[in-house]
Amino acid sequence: MTTKPAIGFCGLGAMGFGMATHLVSQSYPVTGYDVYAPTLSRFASAGGTPSSSLSESAKDKAFYICMVATAAQAEQALFGTDGIVAALPQNAVLYLTSTVPSSYAQSVSKKLEDIGRSDVYFIDAPVSGGAIRAANGTLSIMAGASGAAFEKGKWLLDELTAPGKLFIVDGGVGAGSNMKMVHQVLAAIHIISVSEAFGFAAGLGLNGKEVRDHVIGGKAWSFMFENRSVRTLAEDYFPGASAVTIILKDTGIITSMANLVDFPVPLCATAEQLYITGLNKDYGANDDAGLVRLWTTEPVASIQSSRSDDEKKAKLELVSDLLIGIHLVAAAEGVSFAKHLGVSLGQYYELCVEAAGGSAVFKEQAPKMIDILEGKQNEGEASLKSYRDALKAVVTEARNQRIPLHLGNGALSLMEQAGKEGDFTSLLKLYSVE
Amino acid sequence: MTTKPAIGFCGLGAMGFGMATHLVSQSYPVTGYDVYAPTLSRFASAGGTPSSSLSESAKDKAFYICMVATAAQAEQALFGTDGIVAALPQNAVLYLTSTVPSSYAQSVSKKLEDIGRSDVYFIDAPVSGGAIRAANGTLSIMAGASGAAFEKGKWLLDELTAPGKLFIVDGGVGAGSNMKMVHQVLAAIHIISVSEAFGFAAGLGLNGKEVRDHVIGGKAWSFMFENRSVRTLAEDYFPGASAVTIILKDTGIITSMANLVDFPVPLCATAEQLYITGLNKDYGANDDAGLVRLWTTEPVASIQSSRSDDEKKAKLELVSDLLIGIHLVAAAEGVSFAKHLGVSLGQYYELCVEAAGGSAVFKEQAPKMIDILEGKQNEGEASLKSYRDALKAVVTEARNQRIPLHLGNGALSLMEQAGKEGDFTSLLKLYSVE
Repeated sequence: MTTKPAIGFCGLGAMGFGMATHLVSQSYPVTGYDVYAPTLSRFASAGGTPSSSLSESAKDKAFYICMVATAAQAEQALFGTDGIVAALPQNAVLYLTSTVPSSYAQSVSKKLEDIGRSDVYFIDAPVSGGAIRAANGTLSIMAGASGAAFEKGKWLLDELTAPGKLFIVDGGVGAGSNMKMVHQVLAAIHIISVSEAFGFAAGLGLNGKEVRDHVIGGKAWSFMFENRSVRTLAEDYFPGASAVTIILKDTGIITSMANLVDFPVPLCATAEQLYITGLNKDYGANDDAGLVRLWTTEPVASIQSSRSDDEKKAKLELVSDLLIGIHLVAAAEGVSFAKHLGVSLGQYYELCVEAAGGSAVFKEQAPKMIDILEGKQNEGEASLKSYRDALKAVVTEARNQRIPLHLGNGALSLMEQAGKEGDFTSLLKLYSVE
Repeated sequence: MTTKPAIGFCGLGAMGFGMATHLVSQSYPVTGYDVYAPTLSRFASAGGTPSSSLSESAKDKAFYICMVATAAQAEQALFGTDGIVAALPQNAVLYLTSTVPSSYAQSVSKKLEDIGRSDVYFIDAPVSGGAIRAANGTLSIMAGASGAAFEKGKWLLDELTAPGKLFIVDGGVGAGSNMKMVHQVLAAIHIISVSEAFGFAAGLGLNGKEVRDHVIGGKAWSFMFENRSVRTLAEDYFPGASAVTIILKDTGIITSMANLVDFPVPLCATAEQLYITGLNKDYGANDDAGLVRLWTTEPVASIQSSRSDDEKKAKLELVSDLLIGIHLVAAAEGVSFAKHLGVSLGQYYELCVEAAGGSAVFKEQAPKMIDILEGKQNEGEASLKSYRDALKAVVTEARNQRIPLHLGNGALSLMEQAGKEGDFTSLLKLYSVE
């Protein structure tokens, strides 16, 4: 029997716990640390070795994964008193899998050098896919590092990812975080669109279960809708699996970077205001699926519809059209920002389409957008008219029923800006700032 | 002593009551009707003649003013059972001073013809200026009608307006409502920007009175800020002077028309979602100044700032910069929509600058925008850079302090869309759809 290498881990939240226990299930000895003691007991029950301090979790570990929530937490965990880096052995591989600004990931490299620990192989490796895929070892990971670091440490990323879902991003440390950020453009918009869709449906008197059945498998599908709607229907928000504070943090990384480089991200900015509104209503620690409460306090799974089947079908179509319109503009915003930042669009597509940012619209239409941005002949139909007309009907119904559609109206305004004869090219031009 | 002509009036709300009692003060015999009985008693105390029915209020009145809230109410009052039109004498002048879609004003003309009452001189004459100017007879009025109707009925509009504030709009019936609608683009955005500014200031720990003192008279001034902030500071929302439902109705006229003609009005659409959100929080009947409660429940006049004078001054500048950025994009949205609808831009400017849509930014910068839209040589400095940089600082501070800025972010996104070297021309191009 081969002895597998010991792994240090800190940050046993929804994602980190899944990742760490997956490694345990693969017979790795994993020593885990978290500030929240009950999590450590759960981790011990799952076969992990709980640690009482960061330095202890890092001692003698040639491989260490840091999966805390924010850059500020990472800074403290890595370099603070009794922290990880000081305790790591020479030539250890350190993985930062949190979603952080690329500039922060780069600052870690620099700091390692500054404090005389350039022996540490640092890999910038944010993840995507949600808690279930974390626990199954089938995440998507986008990683940036030196060739030497990958040579020594790529194997562990393979353990955490599904086949073909480890994306080695060109550009070294920071490139992984950059890719994650542009992926999160889709995630940030899609997550709140789930609540907006259920809020709209509730205002139309539709039962949430019927909404889910209608959306799943159709053109309005998104990973986030399929994933979050389970918790929306169950009102499983306390704490649920993914807190509002997490996506708010990720969205802030996007909008801050966009401001820095003077790039417009109108739908992300709209999403951010809704996350902040949720935070201010004390929903911050709750699951982001609970943001449907910005629209309705009635449990959406309990709504009794008195509509005829035909009426119901027509209204369900409106809900789908809302999501489709939002997803289309989200795709344009995502690919355009990726292009602006010099991210490989082919890799971006390949990554997003099966990660948490995926949607049916993205899968079908993003390739056309990428062709346009790369100056290739665009073969496919790419008029906005059908999308715009459908979204206008949605927005009109919402206006009549007094249901706020922040993203729906934002997406429609952009389609209107693209002009009466607007197509994907004119939509993308709205993001082509120089 | 000359006997002045008798005037019929219906709709004695905040505006209508002021208009009707102003006419009473000018020695006109005014017979007024309202569905709300206590208002009729107040009207009698002010020297008016209360009427117990619409038809009675219209009987023998050669001049009749209808100032109800909505097109639906107007339709009922004019043509419903026991309504106004049937009771009007031959060749009466009928003024519709409510804010309604231009298509509705045109439908009134048509209906008068259809029912054999084309003898009635109909004047489409929406007003602007607020309750105080209504009561002083110093409103702005934008009127469309036939030459014959104006010949017979213009004098009464003169009585209600300040010198130079009666705008006869080319295009006949509907043209007045059209002008009012594009004026309301500014009003709709400015009204909610007052609450967003006070909400932002509250989040920064600034006292509302100091905010008002800082804004009034400076570059961040708007009519709406000066007017609404009195009620914001006094929490005079119940019912206050201008209900959320009124500006929501006006905003819906704008966004519906924009959808109809495929024109983007992103800031108006953002404003509309906030009005709907307020309505859903049961603020509909309250004054629109009370929408500051979407940001904070603390009375803004009671906030005790612990900041140093220098800090306070810097934060107050941020509040002003927020308003200035919003007002600039509002001006672009207003003049662009006016242009798109074929409204005279010179008249639009002249009207708005001293009506409820006025702002210091509009006064200074709209002429440059109009020159650009009219293809004239633009002499003035018209870079967006200083506006964009200032608004970026605002949005960054709001992000850090977790304060939602729906309009501020919307305005910034548009400035970013205008490009790094963006100027007024590139901002206006965002609205130049074909």
